[in-house]
Amino acid sequence: MADGRLARGERTRTAVLDAAVSMASVDGLEAMSLARLAHATEVSKSGLFAHWPDKEALQLAVIARAVHIWTAHVVTPAFAEPRGVRRLWALHERRIEFYASGVLSGGCFFVATQAEFDDRPGPVRDALAAAINDWLFLIKAVAAQAVELGELRPDADVEQVAFEIEAHGHAVVTFSRLLHAEGAAAYGRTAVLERLRSLSPVPGLLPAS
Amino acid sequence: MADGRLARGERTRTAVLDAAVSMASVDGLEAMSLARLAHATEVSKSGLFAHWPDKEALQLAVIARAVHIWTAHVVTPAFAEPRGVRRLWALHERRIEFYASGVLSGGCFFVATQAEFDDRPGPVRDALAAAINDWLFLIKAVAAQAVELGELRPDADVEQVAFEIEAHGHAVVTFSRLLHAEGAAAYGRTAVLERLRSLSPVPGLLPAS
Repeated sequence: MADGRLARGERTRTAVLDAAVSMASVDGLEAMSLARLAHATEVSKSGLFAHWPDKEALQLAVIARAVHIWTAHVVTPAFAEPRGVRRLWALHERRIEFYASGVLSGGCFFVATQAEFDDRPGPVRDALAAAINDWLFLIKAVAAQAVELGELRPDADVEQVAFEIEAHGHAVVTFSRLLHAEGAAAYGRTAVLERLRSLSPVPGLLPAS
Repeated sequence: MADGRLARGERTRTAVLDAAVSMASVDGLEAMSLARLAHATEVSKSGLFAHWPDKEALQLAVIARAVHIWTAHVVTPAFAEPRGVRRLWALHERRIEFYASGVLSGGCFFVATQAEFDDRPGPVRDALAAAINDWLFLIKAVAAQAVELGELRPDADVEQVAFEIEAHGHAVVTFSRLLHAEGAAAYGRTAVLERLRSLSPVPGLLPAS
């Protein structure tokens, strides 16, 4: 009985955080509140308060859940590809597919919150920066493996490659949200694909276009 | 006498809007208010109210001023370069220099406000989208001229080039603000320079690195 209640509590907690990540992908984290979240998820405010006693605790839990969703949809499937340039490309391609899938109503939690917190020191900013740095570190590590395997040129600058991949992934969101630019996903895809093909001695490992 | 008063009024209005653009580059446009602005500029709230009767009128005036600042610091100097690939490169290089100059305390007004309004229909969102679309249109027009002049390959896709230049310019801000990434400006510079050199039959018109 107690176990069943714990499991139910955990499911509710996860469902509430999923809703919160999606809301924050639209409105950001500053507009997040227990009251709005209670209203949206039909869970009592006091029930939520037991989990997250203040706004900052809630914001930090939402960031952790956003990282979990990103990992499940982008990182884990990309790591099903063989290490090297195919895995590097898969990180970008899965990201664009994740945006297109509409899992989050605002497109991307991290794009929505990055500019919001870049000038506000504190634990929330630190958690966001750590999550994005982890993602960049992953891109660099996978790119470095591709260099070691001879699938990217030995002189490829993996820091530069990570900057460019992140820039194009981010731009897919900003272009398609604010500008309703048709084809944003296609531009973001082509930019990275052409770049990786130009840096790879074995471009045949990558799609032709 | 009346003329002097008008000129003084105009100078005050401009100074207030300059302060507002800088504040919005840190906190966004939603946090903007006549009260905060009056406090920051030491102009009376009733004096400001005479110019901008409501928050939306103020937000629209701030966007127009941000476009003016961008044009003065980025577009006008770039247009001093000969048309073609040098002018295209100058648009990006002046942008990175503008960020480095610290004119705006948050780095970039448009990066700070883009994600804030992408999901909020209305005149403010429309004005932001129009300003960013004008900028993209300019990049495309200058790139198309470079194609016509034979300074970019005839098969260069100017829409794709504009997406990539904008993505890298935007990323210089997001990387240097949230991640304190040293060298963000250098990565953003290298990404576009290498891309334009690879697309140009006359790469000698561009800096070597």
